[in-house]
Amino acid sequence: MAPPKAPDSTRRSDRSRRAIYDAALALVGETGYARTTIEGIAARAGVGKQTIYRWWPSKAAVLMEAFLDLAARQSAEAAEAAGGEAAGAGAMDAAGTGIPDTGDLAADLKLVLRATVDELNDPVAAAPTRALTAEGIVDPALGAQFVEKLLDPQIQLYVTRLRAAQDAGEVRADIDPRTALELLIAPLTHRWLLRTLPLTHAYADEIVDYTLRGLSPRP
Amino acid sequence: MAPPKAPDSTRRSDRSRRAIYDAALALVGETGYARTTIEGIAARAGVGKQTIYRWWPSKAAVLMEAFLDLAARQSAEAAEAAGGEAAGAGAMDAAGTGIPDTGDLAADLKLVLRATVDELNDPVAAAPTRALTAEGIVDPALGAQFVEKLLDPQIQLYVTRLRAAQDAGEVRADIDPRTALELLIAPLTHRWLLRTLPLTHAYADEIVDYTLRGLSPRP
Repeated sequence: MAPPKAPDSTRRSDRSRRAIYDAALALVGETGYARTTIEGIAARAGVGKQTIYRWWPSKAAVLMEAFLDLAARQSAEAAEAAGGEAAGAGAMDAAGTGIPDTGDLAADLKLVLRATVDELNDPVAAAPTRALTAEGIVDPALGAQFVEKLLDPQIQLYVTRLRAAQDAGEVRADIDPRTALELLIAPLTHRWLLRTLPLTHAYADEIVDYTLRGLSPRP
Repeated sequence: MAPPKAPDSTRRSDRSRRAIYDAALALVGETGYARTTIEGIAARAGVGKQTIYRWWPSKAAVLMEAFLDLAARQSAEAAEAAGGEAAGAGAMDAAGTGIPDTGDLAADLKLVLRATVDELNDPVAAAPTRALTAEGIVDPALGAQFVEKLLDPQIQLYVTRLRAAQDAGEVRADIDPRTALELLIAPLTHRWLLRTLPLTHAYADEIVDYTLRGLSPRP
């Protein structure tokens, strides 16, 4: 038998941490940000509230870490799925460690935006993500944390990929990648948040095609 | 002396209605959707709560009408401003009665998106609009009303203008206007809701240019 990888107390901590994350996400999804409390999270996770206060200074801090953990898990799943599809192509995971660069910008962006569609449509993540986004819209301090810790790292991946495309001559040199990426990600977020129309892979593909080719006829 | 245009009771009703709209928007902006009540709106407007119940069935209904009224007033202001700029060009108001069609799609879209930037940055409208949008994100029934009554009519104006551009050969025939307009409006909403970066006229212009020309180099 292999020896245990960590002492018992560490394993207990890991179990508690996972239970707290799960409880925090479930509660905020069910009752909203305002009604979620440290006491409620502790009760649902089956830990004492002192355990939570020992590790995190506030409700916002617990939730933010729970979301970062969720994003990391989603990204690992996406990597696994993408690894299956793009095995041997050297493609990296979309959300976590980079946007693939196979030399075909349209194909790489479609892979990433389709994975984003799947993440946004994931029923487990949807309710808590909506609740946190909604709270960030009316609470500037929480919104700034959300952008800094969750959104900006993803945005940077698009900047990097679009710069590489500029170097490869696939994107015009006079484009600002930081602005251009908003044509790709904002339509998906907009459709998801406001529920204007269904959020599908076909929509993700159209957004990529329209963004790269533009609406005007080629001269 | 000119005779009064309406009987006293109608003028009193108009004054009460205006006071109720103002109170509803101010309260939802200050305390959020959940904490806004019919009683609170009545107290702030200086009317009895029965007056509100006589005219509207619910808090959501009062707020939706207050927003429609606000949108109509913003649109009238924008029409006045655009009338000054585009006098004699036959341009119509952006948000209310149509997107101008001067034959120059880029210029017309920039005019409209700049007006949208000004509306989103308007400090009076910002807090209540954020509060309603945030609530619509977590409350599908309210969100659906928001989309149907406020957003879809605006979306239809873009569809109409992009179809005219297709007829004029300014937009490719194989573009779906209903999808394409999201490249124009979603980035502004995204930046405004999430406060990623400042929402400026220069940004609106870039979004129009990138959307029409595309990111790929012309062959």
